[in-house]
Amino acid sequence: MKASIITIGDEILIGQIVDTNAASISRRLNAAGITVAERTSVGDDREQIIRTLERELAQSEAVILTGGLGPTKDDITKKTLAEIFGSRMVRDEAVADHVRTMLEKRGIAFNELNQGQAMVPECCTVLFNRHGTAPGMWFERDGRVVVSLPGVPFEMEHLMEDEVMPRLRERFSLRQIVHRTMITSGLAESMLAERIAAWEEALPEYLHLAYLPSPTVVRLRLSAYEVDGESVGREIEERFERLKEIIPQYILGFETATLQSAVHDLLISRGETLAVAESCTGGAIASRFTAMAGASAYFLCGVVSYSNEAKRDVLGVPAELIERHGAVSEQVARSMAEGVRRISGADYGVATTGIAGPTGGTAEKPVGTVWIAVASESGTAAVMKQSGTDRGQIIDRASGYAISLLRDTIGR
Amino acid sequence: MKASIITIGDEILIGQIVDTNAASISRRLNAAGITVAERTSVGDDREQIIRTLERELAQSEAVILTGGLGPTKDDITKKTLAEIFGSRMVRDEAVADHVRTMLEKRGIAFNELNQGQAMVPECCTVLFNRHGTAPGMWFERDGRVVVSLPGVPFEMEHLMEDEVMPRLRERFSLRQIVHRTMITSGLAESMLAERIAAWEEALPEYLHLAYLPSPTVVRLRLSAYEVDGESVGREIEERFERLKEIIPQYILGFETATLQSAVHDLLISRGETLAVAESCTGGAIASRFTAMAGASAYFLCGVVSYSNEAKRDVLGVPAELIERHGAVSEQVARSMAEGVRRISGADYGVATTGIAGPTGGTAEKPVGTVWIAVASESGTAAVMKQSGTDRGQIIDRASGYAISLLRDTIGR
Repeated sequence: MKASIITIGDEILIGQIVDTNAASISRRLNAAGITVAERTSVGDDREQIIRTLERELAQSEAVILTGGLGPTKDDITKKTLAEIFGSRMVRDEAVADHVRTMLEKRGIAFNELNQGQAMVPECCTVLFNRHGTAPGMWFERDGRVVVSLPGVPFEMEHLMEDEVMPRLRERFSLRQIVHRTMITSGLAESMLAERIAAWEEALPEYLHLAYLPSPTVVRLRLSAYEVDGESVGREIEERFERLKEIIPQYILGFETATLQSAVHDLLISRGETLAVAESCTGGAIASRFTAMAGASAYFLCGVVSYSNEAKRDVLGVPAELIERHGAVSEQVARSMAEGVRRISGADYGVATTGIAGPTGGTAEKPVGTVWIAVASESGTAAVMKQSGTDRGQIIDRASGYAISLLRDTIGR
Repeated sequence: MKASIITIGDEILIGQIVDTNAASISRRLNAAGITVAERTSVGDDREQIIRTLERELAQSEAVILTGGLGPTKDDITKKTLAEIFGSRMVRDEAVADHVRTMLEKRGIAFNELNQGQAMVPECCTVLFNRHGTAPGMWFERDGRVVVSLPGVPFEMEHLMEDEVMPRLRERFSLRQIVHRTMITSGLAESMLAERIAAWEEALPEYLHLAYLPSPTVVRLRLSAYEVDGESVGREIEERFERLKEIIPQYILGFETATLQSAVHDLLISRGETLAVAESCTGGAIASRFTAMAGASAYFLCGVVSYSNEAKRDVLGVPAELIERHGAVSEQVARSMAEGVRRISGADYGVATTGIAGPTGGTAEKPVGTVWIAVASESGTAAVMKQSGTDRGQIIDRASGYAISLLRDTIGR
């Protein structure tokens, strides 16, 4: 079965926001065996919404729309849908009560604009939005389904999970879609493709291979559409087992595995602990670990030692080391890693010190120069990495390099 | 003038990646006065690419495509374009030399797959990609333009800036699009709309107002399409000046202003300094500040005191305070904020301690409970905030609340 997604809002078309809703809806539909035929973003424009919806209804059995359901004048999705389905607007008392209660809790008056949120096209089934004030709506016509959801990601996700997916499963008989992803690290895309060419050649036609490269990892995804999920799942497992024999040292994990999740699992299974001292990465490494549930089992402490005084007073880096070699130096990186390991009592201490820019670079140490060190019981390793020219990119790449060095150190 | 954007890749349709390229291209086109009519994402599928491209060429003078240009078999954009334009593939020696040199620097062999990257449709103008191995391509037909760019965001952005935008400006005579955004904080969307209703009512027809709400801020955007940019820019300035008089206390800033950028500007203009002690936010607050160029002027030190020992040994929180009240308590939050202010010598110390979940909650202190404190010369303020139920959301909201309390403290 095919579905289309239409995300509505001028803020999407002008690039003011990145559309994360479309990806989130795609994942849920795929998990239920529904193929996404096409995704379109249009503005808050009556003609365009009508034209696009009719077009997508010609190729898909279900169309999911998000956005344009707010209380203000620029939001026109609801009245446009009423027009398309030739339905008058009626007041839904359950929605009205819910909106009033929600607003009262937050100390907001139930004004005329909010009253409008309780009005819905008479022909739709209301999908109750317990997390927000704009209700979802479910329409049917000629055996096809149109669903309209609010654009606030959190509200949309709950409605998809609690209301839309169960109804789609009940309404259509669905086959399965299988995606499995293996994460590799350490081989560039073209070298990886060359190395596994024979394995790729031998794949059956219904298994589709995709390469997804990024600076630190290359993901390999095998997909099969509208199949018997169980047997295809087993087939993919076996194919990946063979791949493990070909490139064992380059496999980081599966599905959403990342460098940090691989280290997270390693540290938990070994019962070891971690502390981080960051200068140029400014808390990004600590954030990557602490964003994962269960990090408190091994993450003891992070220090963002931005000033030289913090490096000296909190981490115990000797002032004369900074004076002689500069804050961005191998010596200071090593001292930071050893310092944070000492003050926290962790098994591993990781440190970064570099020039994130845009200013502060010199001919000898240009913007993007980053020293990385990892201290452990068996000593301290340090490397210098050129990490790009853009501040965000430098922080991101340097964090990746540091976690990669930590992974190598633990694995040794 | 109108343009369409088509992003290509199965990974987009199945939701494995969030499509950030479309937003970035939209911003650049808008800045040059080009209206984005529609954005579509399709799979690596020949028929779908052909059908969508023909459809968009019927409504837009230019169509920008990204993705599907890699060296591996799943990437088919280039050969599909050669087919559409009825052109044979030829080898581009400049691209071949560049790819070989790039790969050699990284110690990667120039294999058959990479050789393929130097092949381009004969009828296109090659857009040289100095940051990657897949060249961009520029096609013309019947006075309309088709541009194909690699999907790697960094490479795509450089090609848009260096090659595509100058050619579009030369090729078409462009009028201007004006967007100005005011960022408000502290009023819910419907209350804000009520408060500024008369101002909104008085806007001229060619100025379009949009409300963009999020948990901590509501953005108000005024847009005008295909106009004389200078006079409309002045008109919008004047409208916003009047709005400032209506809701002076709720205005955070303009355009991309955020809570942290407002604090960043405040601290730099006052010559004051900041230190942060984070437990549940795990480095997210430090990251938000240090991601901004110039943060080293005021950001002295961050401590991610995840363990109780780190709270005691690094920040000096008395062990008996943690024992008596628990790590998630007003007393410990206050002591952390005061501790990090003391050890760093900063003017302001900010602290968070809470339960990010998914485990660790109790009836008394459920997941999402976060204590926030800000210490300054004039004393220490503390508040408790329920910040949601999802780990990522809790970290994000608690960071926002903490920076908001810091902003109030500085402004006082």
